Amino acid sequence: MITADLARKIIAAGEARANAIGVPVNIAVLDAGASLKAFGRMDGAILGSIDIALGKARTAALFGMRTEAIGEFSKPGGTSPGLEQTNGGLVVFAGGIPLKADDGQLIGAVGVSGGAVAQDLDIAEAAAATIGN
Amino acid sequence: MITADLARKIIAAGEARANAIGVPVNIAVLDAGASLKAFGRMDGAILGSIDIALGKARTAALFGMRTEAIGEFSKPGGTSPGLEQTNGGLVVFAGGIPLKADDGQLIGAVGVSGGAVAQDLDIAEAAAATIGN
Amino acid sequence: MITADLARKIIAAGEARANAIGVPVNIAVLDAGASLKAFGRMDGAILGSIDIALGKARTAALFGMRTEAIGEFSKPGGTSPGLEQTNGGLVVFAGGIPLKADDGQLIGAVGVSGGAVAQDLDIAEAAAATIGN
Amino acid sequence: MITADLARKIIAAGEARANAIGVPVNIAVLDAGASLKAFGRMDGAILGSIDIALGKARTAALFGMRTEAIGEFSKPGGTSPGLEQTNGGLVVFAGGIPLKADDGQLIGAVGVSGGAVAQDLDIAEAAAATIGN
Repeated sequence: MITADLARKIIAAGEARANAIGVPVNIAVLDAGASLKAFGRMDGAILGSIDIALGKARTAALFGMRTEAIGEFSKPGGTSPGLEQTNGGLVVFAGGIPLKADDGQLIGAVGVSGGAVAQDLDIAEAAAATIGN
Repeated sequence: MITADLARKIIAAGEARANAIGVPVNIAVLDAGASLKAFGRMDGAILGSIDIALGKARTAALFGMRTEAIGEFSKPGGTSPGLEQTNGGLVVFAGGIPLKADDGQLIGAVGVSGGAVAQDLDIAEAAAATIGN
Repeated sequence: MITADLARKIIAAGEARANAIGVPVNIAVLDAGASLKAFGRMDGAILGSIDIALGKARTAALFGMRTEAIGEFSKPGGTSPGLEQTNGGLVVFAGGIPLKADDGQLIGAVGVSGGAVAQDLDIAEAAAATIGN
Repeated sequence: MITADLARKIIAAGEARANAIGVPVNIAVLDAGASLKAFGRMDGAILGSIDIALGKARTAALFGMRTEAIGEFSKPGGTSPGLEQTNGGLVVFAGGIPLKADDGQLIGAVGVSGGAVAQDLDIAEAAAATIGN
């Protein structure tokens, strides 16, 4: 389970990495049911990325997969064209990572947005590493 | 007409096939008016597939066609670009199958989601076979 | 946790009571995160009640309370006017009951609609009694 | 301006008060443009209150007033019937407080939900007191 304390640590780890690479981002942490647990917008992070961080975390929680993996399914020539239009709209590029317990069970997800996609992914991985993911 | 009893049998047939191939899915059964008749989420089925199973069944019921056939119309180069945006959003990859009476009349649809697209289709076909479709 | 098997039993118990009092209804079972687990529409149940059954179950799951208790907060003169407009719209009359484990933890909710409100509540209570609630 | 550091302190002050009175809540902090700056859901806070905490903070930020003051305008007999339906839906009961700088300028808002309305207000006031409001 993602406690409030753990959610704060996950966000703090992401923000530490974001500061290290010099890009302010929004970070959202959701529980296994895709409900918001905690959110933080770093000073200077762009407003349009709030919704994207939330959407990446939601997408990763709903499917138990990284957002870019969903993007593989929905891209032109993929198995599931239009998948990104389901569930009220998904975000299907990198920066959303499912969070799993030691036994592999899905316990939530983290979503990061505000930098280049590669930076967002880098920061999300630092955040997820808090619980060894 | 899809009775409650028949809807349960259709879902049970789909779940039996899903268990046989080892993939937990969501299965929705709708009537000819595209209204929900019955739904079941197997234990372990991912949350993001609830909306997709409902959407596949809805798409198949609204058009009286398999969802992937609608995908042919809406794909790049198809006759009906953007078709998937109509009706509040359609799901246009395989896993939704119309249900027809012996005389060919549309009586409803079944939608399956949770596995790979080919698995979803396999399970939907097992479900539809309940009434000889 | 509400397993698929338990969800089916909850719906069956509700339908048995509905048959006993002669009113066809829609019954929805959701998990603790307010995601759909199972749904059944009895033959003859009115279409407009599908959304209401889903909404009652969703409201009861989101707040861990019976829907009519939410109605007390939101009614004229209540503490929370307009509460029913939050969360994309709540249903605040009887027929939604939270489902709790023996230790009191919320594990989901059941929602019933199709008859008079008192009948819906009667049927929802029969459904919830499946797990001793 | 509400910095990320200040937003965290505002939430922490609210959570300290919530712990003191024994009610887990959701706390949202928005900036002067009504965009989300930080959010925290305490362990045990009900899911239905996530949207309400966000809505209270949004309402207070949009109007620069406490949410219950908006409720006075929109209540039966008030000057602005239906006001709560504007802006995509407002939350017009207590628990949302605008945050103002020493010179009186609006810099954001805090919204709290999860307990009784009087408790939510109590906690929101403790949160707002962080900056002397």
